[in-house]
Formats: sequence, C-alpha cells, structure tokens
Amino acid sequence: MQKVDTLIENGLIVTLDGTARVLPEGSVAIHGSTITAVGPKEEIAAVYSAETTVNAENHLVMPGLINAHTHLSMTLLRGLADDLVLEAFLERVWEAEEKFMNPPTIRLGAELAICEMIRGGTTFAQDMYWFPEATAEAARSAGFRLMNGPIFVDFEGADHTPADQREGKARTFLDKYADEELIHPCLMPHGTYTVSPPLLEIIKTLMDEYLVPLHTHASETAFEVATVQERYNETPVSQLDRFGMLQPTTTLAHGVHLAPEDIRLLAERGSAVVHCPVSNLKTAAGFAPLPALKEAGVPVLLGTDGTSSSNDLDMWKVLRFAAILARSELGDPTFNPALDVVRMATSDAARAMGLGEKLGSLEPGKYADLIMIELNKPHLTPLFDVYSQLVYAVGREDVSDVFIHGKAVMRDRRLLTLDENWIMYQARLKAEEIAG
Amino acid sequence: MQKVDTLIENGLIVTLDGTARVLPEGSVAIHGSTITAVGPKEEIAAVYSAETTVNAENHLVMPGLINAHTHLSMTLLRGLADDLVLEAFLERVWEAEEKFMNPPTIRLGAELAICEMIRGGTTFAQDMYWFPEATAEAARSAGFRLMNGPIFVDFEGADHTPADQREGKARTFLDKYADEELIHPCLMPHGTYTVSPPLLEIIKTLMDEYLVPLHTHASETAFEVATVQERYNETPVSQLDRFGMLQPTTTLAHGVHLAPEDIRLLAERGSAVVHCPVSNLKTAAGFAPLPALKEAGVPVLLGTDGTSSSNDLDMWKVLRFAAILARSELGDPTFNPALDVVRMATSDAARAMGLGEKLGSLEPGKYADLIMIELNKPHLTPLFDVYSQLVYAVGREDVSDVFIHGKAVMRDRRLLTLDENWIMYQARLKAEEIAG
Repeated sequence: MQKVDTLIENGLIVTLDGTARVLPEGSVAIHGSTITAVGPKEEIAAVYSAETTVNAENHLVMPGLINAHTHLSMTLLRGLADDLVLEAFLERVWEAEEKFMNPPTIRLGAELAICEMIRGGTTFAQDMYWFPEATAEAARSAGFRLMNGPIFVDFEGADHTPADQREGKARTFLDKYADEELIHPCLMPHGTYTVSPPLLEIIKTLMDEYLVPLHTHASETAFEVATVQERYNETPVSQLDRFGMLQPTTTLAHGVHLAPEDIRLLAERGSAVVHCPVSNLKTAAGFAPLPALKEAGVPVLLGTDGTSSSNDLDMWKVLRFAAILARSELGDPTFNPALDVVRMATSDAARAMGLGEKLGSLEPGKYADLIMIELNKPHLTPLFDVYSQLVYAVGREDVSDVFIHGKAVMRDRRLLTLDENWIMYQARLKAEEIAG
Repeated sequence: MQKVDTLIENGLIVTLDGTARVLPEGSVAIHGSTITAVGPKEEIAAVYSAETTVNAENHLVMPGLINAHTHLSMTLLRGLADDLVLEAFLERVWEAEEKFMNPPTIRLGAELAICEMIRGGTTFAQDMYWFPEATAEAARSAGFRLMNGPIFVDFEGADHTPADQREGKARTFLDKYADEELIHPCLMPHGTYTVSPPLLEIIKTLMDEYLVPLHTHASETAFEVATVQERYNETPVSQLDRFGMLQPTTTLAHGVHLAPEDIRLLAERGSAVVHCPVSNLKTAAGFAPLPALKEAGVPVLLGTDGTSSSNDLDMWKVLRFAAILARSELGDPTFNPALDVVRMATSDAARAMGLGEKLGSLEPGKYADLIMIELNKPHLTPLFDVYSQLVYAVGREDVSDVFIHGKAVMRDRRLLTLDENWIMYQARLKAEEIAG
C-alpha cells in the first residue's frame, strides 16, 4: 500500500480533464499539495492508504472554481452605493476608499472575502487592489490561492503612491512572492485610460524581466473606449498590443465593448477575456460578446468583479448568467452548453492564467484544489446530468468541503483557517465608521 | 396582556407596507392565520404575550416571496433536457410527461418542489400543471399557499382529457376549492396558440361565474406570436382582450414579445405580466420589456417557470436577474432599483393576483406568510442597505424560518410538514424510470 495524506472516497468525481471523465463512484488520493491519483474507488482503495479519509458519498467532487477578476477588499463596501448613476457611485466608493482603505482594513476586507469564497467553492481568485501585500498575506495565512500584484495608475490612488514610485514597489512585490506556492504574482495596470504610455513601457519591461502574467481592465464601458480612442486614436486592446502586452497569459477584465479587430487581435495573441456579467449588467455596461469571442477562439474566463458592483462573490451565479445571457440574441438555446461553462471557471481559467499544468482539473500531479458539493438537497434532486446540475441548480451553499493546495480549509461547512465570526464582527465595526 | 399564538421578536423587520417601513429591532405578533401587530420590540412586548416566541435577533423578517409562474411537478424532469433546440427539448419533455405524469407522480413532484420553495423562502406559488388537484392536495397537506386551477388546451394533454370535458372538470375543481384558505383557485388556459376561440368563450363564462383570477402563457416566443397572428390576425394579448379576459386579476406569463399596443392594452385593463428571465434566457426566448411595461404602469411580477426550463425554483436568482437585465439597453444603472424588485415578488404580486388585502406585506390583518433570513453570514456582511442586500446578496440558503398562514413550516432550516428525505428518495426512483 502506498501512503498518502488524504483519501477522498466514493464521490461523484467530475475531473474536467481533457476528456471530461466522470467517475460515478470514485476516489481522489492527495499527498502534500498535489493529487496523486484519481480513479474508481476500488482501484484507489487497492493501492493507497491515508491518515485522513473523507467520505464523499452523496457528494460531487470537482476542481475549485476560479474567480478571474475581483477586488476582494471591497467586501467592506458591499451595498454602500447601489442603483446610482456612475458619478454618484464613484464618488461614494472613492471617498470611502480614500478614507478607509489602508493595509489593515484591506487585509480585513480580504479575509471577509476569503471566508465567502471558500464557503462558495472558489479556491483561486485574481485580485486587483491597493496594497497587494495586505491581500496576499491574508490569502497566505488562510491557505487560499491568489493571483495578485502591484497596481499601476497615473494618479496617486488610495495607496498614495506617486506614479514614479510604482516600479520600485512592483519589484519589491514580485521579488517577495516569486517563490510562494499559494501566491501567484502578476502585473496589474489598472487600464489604458488610467495608465499612460510611459508607465505602460515600464510595465512591459517588468513583464519581460519577471515573466509573470498581466491582468488589466479593458473595454468595460463605452466611455472608457471613447476616452482611449480620442486620446490615442486606438482601442484599449490595440494599445495593449502595441506595447506588446497581449501575451498568452494576459487576461483582460470585462471586454464588453470590443471591436471585431480587437477580437481578432486577442485570438491571434492568445490573450483571454474575463467575462463579469453580474457586475456589467448591474452597472448598465452591457456584457462581453461571447458568441464572437468563442467563434474567434478567444479564451473566456469568469469573474464576479468587486462587491461594490457585484455585491457578492458567488461564482455559481456568474456561471448561470454566462450560460444563458447571450442565447436570446442568437436565438440559440444550445449556445455555451453547461460543460463549456464549467470549464470557463476551471480548466480554461487555469490555462489562461498560466497555470494549466498545475490547476483546473482533477489529474495526478496537479495541485489538490478541489471542492465537494452535497447532492442530497431538494433543489438538486433528481440528477440527470452533472454539468446541467452544476450550472443551472447548484449554489454556493451546496459546497460542503474545500481543499486548497492539499489542505482542508473547510470541512462540513466549518472554516478551518479563518475566524469567521471575529472577521464579521470587525467588518461591521468598520462599516459603521464608513457609513459615518 | 393580549394572548397571541406566536411572537417573532427582535428582528430587522422589513414590512413592505405602503411606506416601506423598516424596523431595526421589531417584533411581529401572529394569531391564527393572520398578523395581529407589527412594531418596535418594546411596544409589542408591552401588549402581547405568546405561547411560542421566536428569537429573530440577527435575522431579517419579511413577507414570503411569491413565485407567480411555475409548473411545480416538473422538478422530476430537472436537467432532463437542457441546452437543446426547442424541438428536441419538447420531444423529450412531452414524452416523459405523457408516460409518467399521473396524479401520484405529479403529487410527488409538487412535494419535492414545495420542499425546495419553503427552503428558499417562497411561501406562495402560482402553478399551472396537469391534474391540478394532485398539486393542490400536496400544498394543502404541506401547509403551502398555492394558486392553481384547471388547465385548458385544445388537445388531450398529459391528463388525457378531451377538450369538451374540460369545462366539467374545471367546475369540479373550482367548486371543491372555493372555500379553501391555502388554495386559491384560478382559471388556466394554456395560451392563445393552444386554446381556440370556442374554448376561450367557455373560460370567459367561468371567469364571470366564479370571479376567480386567470393565468395564461402569452407572448413567450416569437413563434407563438407569429402563429396567433397568422391564425387570427391579432396578437395573443389583443385576442385575450377581445374575449374580455384582460381583467385586473389576470396575469400573463412571460410577455416577452409584446407590441406597443399590447402594452397599452395591459395598462388600460390593469392586467399583469409575470417576468421569468431565468427561464426565458435559457430557452433563448428573449425577456420581457420591463422599461416599457414599467413606464406604461403595467404590474410586473416574477416567476421561475418550471424546472425543465429554469432548473431550480430559486426566486432570489430571479430577483437578481430582474433587477439588472434591462439596464444596459437603457444605459441606466438606476433602473428597477432594489426596493422595486423586492416589491415585484411580494406586495405587487399579491395585488395583481387579487390578494392584495391579505398578502404581500407585514401588516395587521394580513395572512402571516413570512420568512426569516439569517444575516450573520460573510456574504451578507456588512449591511448598508436592506433592499440592496435582499436583491444583490441574499440567497435561498439564508432563509432559516418560514411561516405560512400563521403556521411554522420551517424552523431553523428543518422542514416541519414534509418528509424531505423520503420525497427525495422517491423522486430519485422515479427519475431512474424516466431516464429509462
């Protein structure tokens, strides 16, 4: 018998590997941070024994969801500025950020967000926010997987950093987290309407030197595209390309207002779009043109965006919107079927973020980032098709157990690495201050 | 002290009365089937004492949600036919209905649906399905509030009833449930493309005689509208009006493909549209033109539709879609703000279904149909605005306690009137038969 750390036994295993193998009664062997084996329960039981066994009967086991665009610490501003015109929204949010978003508060907001994400089955998020170390430390200490990094903007943001100090701060962050297993550093220019060419050039230098992914906002609103167009006579996407920033590990948040030429460029460069339908619809921005992106072969990932515009970090709701939103325009109820949608938040996301070898499916050698879903619920009964169930019926509350990097972070709905009640208590105190 | 049956004490009370009064620390007194008083906790405690007290600290208390269009027993077909073109979808669903949907199976499907609805905070549903007695009996025995009634179609449906026997069956149903407090009978012509003029005339006679509401499908798909247009040279809505069926308690499911003249007619007659965005988008039908309907003053309610097209009966998801779906076309993030959306599923729905005096808000004299929402959750922290939280963050799993007609049907997430595990077990057996 081969010793492993953990055996998750006798579940409905949804691997999302290349052939989308599903094992009705399967087991997963985990050792250290990685998956050792996935197979029928008898096969695994014949070869592996473990200190810890987890009974996954009546549970579905699958890779954790990947939230590819968010601003985690904005949980503290959830519901502060809803149903307002853009100017009023920005004024209220920016004022609160300016006044309250220092590193300890950002860490608190990130911890609150990580509680919510783990509970909802998200095991990996790409976060863009001020003072990225605060969020990275929150994630590291909670055992949560994070991709984040230094923000670049022309102005002094809520971190009160002049533009000419951003490169130095970026290098510090990239060096510090270079060898961290849970923290995946990347570069985060805010957007082409907020970062001018000299700073873009610096960021490109850092991209080449550090070989890390790049994540930025692009073409979220018509206003943004018009601004860039007027200023530089090109679209945000074509400008990013001119600076050599459309790489295979580049991901663009939103991509709502894309020209056909933008889509062709993205396909040619292999860069991805992060579709954030729940946020985009709430702010009246429109939504990414999935049919054209899929037809061109552009990878499309899914994100919630920050909770100032999406209010919650529920990836299941994003899956649901992503599946059905574009169908009416096409008149085609077969567009973006359930398996494709699940891949957008797992295997497709991992690949586009440069981690396809290590994440996104349940396969030997990959990191053991996986979730268990309790199936014995009225709204999940009966079960005819696993992918239909995942996209059209499962919700965040059905997630019972979560493993990240081989370690349990939630068992039987109990968070193991975060003091949830204390975090909520502190968040409420902070919200009282913010409400004024 | 005045004796009442139940006191729900010290909750965040969201009344949805005419002034949308919110009590941060309030109580609700319930006696028999109705609400006796709503007020600040001290005021209520000074006047009322009760056998049963419910501590609502850290909970929001509000009227139960109203699902104004569904086909409950189709829970048994959940996920059987997803992401298919219409013909393949209908073939698979109709075959299953024809073969399996007899009264005992329909009752089982309805019980499964009621488990799901109570868990999710829905206390009242308008259901259209074959053998309506089977569903009415399921609801009555579960203590669940239901509006349903006889279906009319030209063909022999899954209930194998020739068209000329439908009037007699309808009278039997309407007489049987005339004085039932939980079951609210109505008339249910399937739609103007499936019910021809002679049968519509009969239904109009029954409307006048029994004075019950009418619910029908109308203008769900472009195909339906074209069919009616070709056959009768009028739209489904104008045809219903010609037969005198657009009354103030008439509710039309879907209303996606409405002409300006249809909307004018609906406004003039005071008839309502039941918006079913989650279903409509999945089947690629489009969605109801909320801006035009709201501008014209047409009441708009919310529904899930059946689980063959919506997969779950989650009204919170419907609220979320209804809030944000129409904003991008308008370019207006202030359209359909959160309070309006909550009203669509509570006070507006009750009024349009002819029960405005008895349901839809927490006010003395109304039926005690109310739900409690647990607020001590990461995704509901912090709380700046109750309506924002309800529409943009609360989910079905946050509902902890449900009262219908003054009786507890769920306490601390335990269903009191249904044997959930037995129902799920039977539903799985039936699904195995259906899968073949």
